Amino acid sequence: MASLRLSGWSCLLLACMLGSVVRSAPTYETLYFDQKIDHFGFYEDSTFRQRYLVSDTHWRKPGGPILFYTGNEGDITLFSNNTGFMWDVAEELGAMLVFAEHRYYGESMPYGNLSYTDPKYLNYLTSEQALADFAVLIRFLKGSVESKDSPVIAIGGSYGGMLAAWLRIKYPHAVVGAIAASAPIWQFEDLVPCNLYYQTVTNDFEKSGTGCAESITKSWAAINRMFKTDEGIGWLSREFHLCSPLKCQDDAAAFKNWLSETWVNLAMVDYPYPANFLEPLPAWPIKEVCKHLRNPNLDDKKLLQNIFQAINVYYNYTGITPCLNTSQTAVGSLDDLGWSYQACTEMVMPFCSDGVTDMFEPQAWNFEAFSDDCYKQWGIRPRPEWITSMYGGKNITTASNIIFSNGDLDPWSAGGVKQSLSDSLIAIIITDGAHHLDLRSNNANDPKSVIEARAMEVAYMKKWIKEHSQQVNGI
Amino acid sequence: MASLRLSGWSCLLLACMLGSVVRSAPTYETLYFDQKIDHFGFYEDSTFRQRYLVSDTHWRKPGGPILFYTGNEGDITLFSNNTGFMWDVAEELGAMLVFAEHRYYGESMPYGNLSYTDPKYLNYLTSEQALADFAVLIRFLKGSVESKDSPVIAIGGSYGGMLAAWLRIKYPHAVVGAIAASAPIWQFEDLVPCNLYYQTVTNDFEKSGTGCAESITKSWAAINRMFKTDEGIGWLSREFHLCSPLKCQDDAAAFKNWLSETWVNLAMVDYPYPANFLEPLPAWPIKEVCKHLRNPNLDDKKLLQNIFQAINVYYNYTGITPCLNTSQTAVGSLDDLGWSYQACTEMVMPFCSDGVTDMFEPQAWNFEAFSDDCYKQWGIRPRPEWITSMYGGKNITTASNIIFSNGDLDPWSAGGVKQSLSDSLIAIIITDGAHHLDLRSNNANDPKSVIEARAMEVAYMKKWIKEHSQQVNGI
Repeated sequence: MASLRLSGWSCLLLACMLGSVVRSAPTYETLYFDQKIDHFGFYEDSTFRQRYLVSDTHWRKPGGPILFYTGNEGDITLFSNNTGFMWDVAEELGAMLVFAEHRYYGESMPYGNLSYTDPKYLNYLTSEQALADFAVLIRFLKGSVESKDSPVIAIGGSYGGMLAAWLRIKYPHAVVGAIAASAPIWQFEDLVPCNLYYQTVTNDFEKSGTGCAESITKSWAAINRMFKTDEGIGWLSREFHLCSPLKCQDDAAAFKNWLSETWVNLAMVDYPYPANFLEPLPAWPIKEVCKHLRNPNLDDKKLLQNIFQAINVYYNYTGITPCLNTSQTAVGSLDDLGWSYQACTEMVMPFCSDGVTDMFEPQAWNFEAFSDDCYKQWGIRPRPEWITSMYGGKNITTASNIIFSNGDLDPWSAGGVKQSLSDSLIAIIITDGAHHLDLRSNNANDPKSVIEARAMEVAYMKKWIKEHSQQVNGI
Repeated sequence: MASLRLSGWSCLLLACMLGSVVRSAPTYETLYFDQKIDHFGFYEDSTFRQRYLVSDTHWRKPGGPILFYTGNEGDITLFSNNTGFMWDVAEELGAMLVFAEHRYYGESMPYGNLSYTDPKYLNYLTSEQALADFAVLIRFLKGSVESKDSPVIAIGGSYGGMLAAWLRIKYPHAVVGAIAASAPIWQFEDLVPCNLYYQTVTNDFEKSGTGCAESITKSWAAINRMFKTDEGIGWLSREFHLCSPLKCQDDAAAFKNWLSETWVNLAMVDYPYPANFLEPLPAWPIKEVCKHLRNPNLDDKKLLQNIFQAINVYYNYTGITPCLNTSQTAVGSLDDLGWSYQACTEMVMPFCSDGVTDMFEPQAWNFEAFSDDCYKQWGIRPRPEWITSMYGGKNITTASNIIFSNGDLDPWSAGGVKQSLSDSLIAIIITDGAHHLDLRSNNANDPKSVIEARAMEVAYMKKWIKEHSQQVNGI
């Protein structure tokens, strides 16, 4: 779990990576905008090229809306390829689509290849700088006669959803509204109980098959017992088809971490239809997983053999994976290094488990240990209170025009806004929805809940667009 | 005027410096709070001691309001001593008073004596860092049982008024409202005509005496003619009682600058009662000045002798000043160096004059020359669009609970919000009011307009306090 605390968030990206139904390749232009490396100081006056993608096929000129994806921790093409919702609604709204890459990800590297080599180069990787990039880019985009009256709507999922919400909160002059999908803006300090995240995962497994969560609960002690002998360690390595065999007791924590992250990932991507992620996954993958975990009352080896069958659904659904790699739970091309830095600076998200209300090994949130790990890895110390001081924590009711959508299956819903805060800060709960399901393309197997969520999102966007138009025209 | 462009703002502080009616010394505690030098990056992790003053004599515990002065470009004791309004209303509101010093001024030096020695040390002198200081300090102040439900109201004048408004705009979770007195938040880019500032000064002189503005208008050509000969230059030095004689034609610009700034300063401090600033000034000082400028149709020497008599009202009302110093138009203890840096980075305020609609020599706004001057002085380049991108320019109607007060005599009203933008973004115009007259102590000679303005400000503060209390109590 220790490493989960550091790298867990990279999982947030997973859902975005899931292949959506293959569409006719959407056409967009790849453009670059010169951004100041440091918006908040004048000593570093250099610029870098921020990449952004523009599709104006359906844009109704002049004045048609701009849907602006607030890029998160990864290559922006991943988000443009996996946010089918925006492509699906562009024609109806007469909207231009813009996908703006987050600095320090993809091609948008402030110091090129040096960007990640030194804490001094990483200094400008913050949400505040990213939001300033977005605000400045939006100002530029609105600089033409055709776009000057275009309302801009921020859209994002996961960390991108947090940025969309924060962009509306902090730069309401730049965007008329925001759709913040699966955005855990409250997963900070003590705003939500730190064990809610793992409880949500546990709920998913509990309702996906009898004995399922209980099997996982019991697996940790079984693993611990196996790790007590060399024979047990060797057995685990073989039974789990590990590419790199476990060597000693010290490997136990990493091994259990890897399993924990796998269960968490499954909860995020528990989609109602087959979806691709590294390996293809079946519809409702947790149900498939739980088919192997019906009996929690087995001896250690039998129980753990079932656990292997279960995770094999995630890692080897096609049956062609030669071995499992415990150093990887997410797509290899993801830039989770960047997120690890962000988690070690601003994005300090407390997680904990108790093994009673959840199926994980008990682990308290230990900020000091976390901070020490961060210092070891990055040479900097996290500031756990900063995000709340900056963005307001739960006190955000002066903001307006934000939709917070959360799927009830999604662990990240734990830190999300799940009740409307006003008549323009709207919470939508998507029953049977995993991580920002609503941002994915329409699918024949979509549950009614997500169809309704998307319809509501479109209705609110139309409302914001109309209100903006009335304001522009002085009505 | 060139130097005015660089240092003009320091004048903003003048009014604050004006001695208010002497009160029994208010009691306050001087405290210090450890602030991160860089809120927006993690590489510079050091802290500095921010000074703040607290007076809780009248504080109604628990939950009584906190009036929070957002310190501007100077020693915070100057503001606590010269914002009589806050002291006057503390008892009625049961309020704690807090005066927070702005970083890089007074005692709040991020790098001690080195703070101003190098652009790299000055890098953290920005309005964004200052606002973050205020937000973090407010969070700390609200950390006790007695204060946790205390509504905080930001109050500031001039640049401090801009900060008060921006604090509410950017950190509405920190303050329930703001009183932004004489805050020229629109003196940027082309949000207001660049010549409005000098037009306002001109209006003041026009209505304060026949021939007054016209005499000043004509003085520039007379001065230019005097500068054509050594005899004329010598004559000017003697007649104006200059401490350092003018030497050559190159001194003409600086000399005219000095006069221009004097006229501007007079407009700012055109108060209805005698007030102290360096030297005491009479009530309605421009009327006194204009008594010497009734006849614009004189020969050069006679006209300029009158100009001398006029500025002598400002520099030598007591008659004991031995000579006039053209390198100084404001109190010597002011930290206008800091403002000069801020003007050269974020606070790029375009000013211009045309000599037709105003009484000044024509001068266009020349950003390139300004930028070059800044580079010469500070080694950095200004970013004229940043403030608008950051704070929204004229598009701030999503904000709420801000009072923008402006005196119609005050040149800085040119960049202020002079019409209400919504039912909670309230503009108050104070007829016959100079620079943030409303923040000064009650005075027997206060015009009705400022008495009404203060009453309105108190009424709005009570409204915000009541609404906050209802929210806290779930009503």
